[in-house]
Amino acid sequence: MSPATARQWLATALAEARAGLAEGGVPIGAALYAADGTLLGRGHNRRVQDGDPSAHAETAAFRAAGRQRSYRGTTMVTTLSPCWYCSGLVRQFGISRVVIGEAETFRGGHEWLAGLGVEIVLLDDPECVTLMREFIAERPELWHEDIGE
Amino acid sequence: MSPATARQWLATALAEARAGLAEGGVPIGAALYAADGTLLGRGHNRRVQDGDPSAHAETAAFRAAGRQRSYRGTTMVTTLSPCWYCSGLVRQFGISRVVIGEAETFRGGHEWLAGLGVEIVLLDDPECVTLMREFIAERPELWHEDIGE
Repeated sequence: MSPATARQWLATALAEARAGLAEGGVPIGAALYAADGTLLGRGHNRRVQDGDPSAHAETAAFRAAGRQRSYRGTTMVTTLSPCWYCSGLVRQFGISRVVIGEAETFRGGHEWLAGLGVEIVLLDDPECVTLMREFIAERPELWHEDIGE
Repeated sequence: MSPATARQWLATALAEARAGLAEGGVPIGAALYAADGTLLGRGHNRRVQDGDPSAHAETAAFRAAGRQRSYRGTTMVTTLSPCWYCSGLVRQFGISRVVIGEAETFRGGHEWLAGLGVEIVLLDDPECVTLMREFIAERPELWHEDIGE
């Protein structure tokens, strides 16, 4: 994929993360794109907003995309390295590619996915890093709850 | 854990699976129990009912349990070997034990979890096997959609 497309798709996920922060939630956003670039679904972590611990950014985007016959060629874009729960989602449903804003503040299972043949695009985006760093500093207990630590 | 407790908890998951089948859905059920045996949440696959591909039995039970500070000592009981998505959930949140009705019709990530120190109790329950076998024979397209194949 072109770097411009990766950045453009990350902007969608980042807008979701900022919406989550504005709602008082965990600022992680994601979006699922089809092989042809169609946006299938977007979402953000909703632990606080819905009292729903299963609503991580990636699962929220996956849910918003509704039922799909196949995930071949799809790309999950997320502001943060996917945790094991979300990495398992990618593996089980055969999502082909994961575009990651950053993996500096948290490292999930993206290397495991790479080893399984999933294309990983790690962007090292400074805005994504700052967003998470400030959130973790301000709400460490909420962050640890969100990743089960 | 005692075999009697494992069977009793599996009965909760099996009741959920049957409720899902009666609703026209994928007949997989699960329940999350606390270390002291309190039922924290129960649920079943809701792909068909809610048009929600993220609602696997285990994630539905996890969601129903609401926000928890820790999953130490908890047990996820499920009628079927957890797929990679649900196995990732168990790993990320540190769920201590998984009780599985059967792993004959489908094998997910439970051996991976065992290797990571999660206690796995595999019951080889004939009712769970029959339920899935009949469902897969009747609705193969729905089953394959549910596991992304």
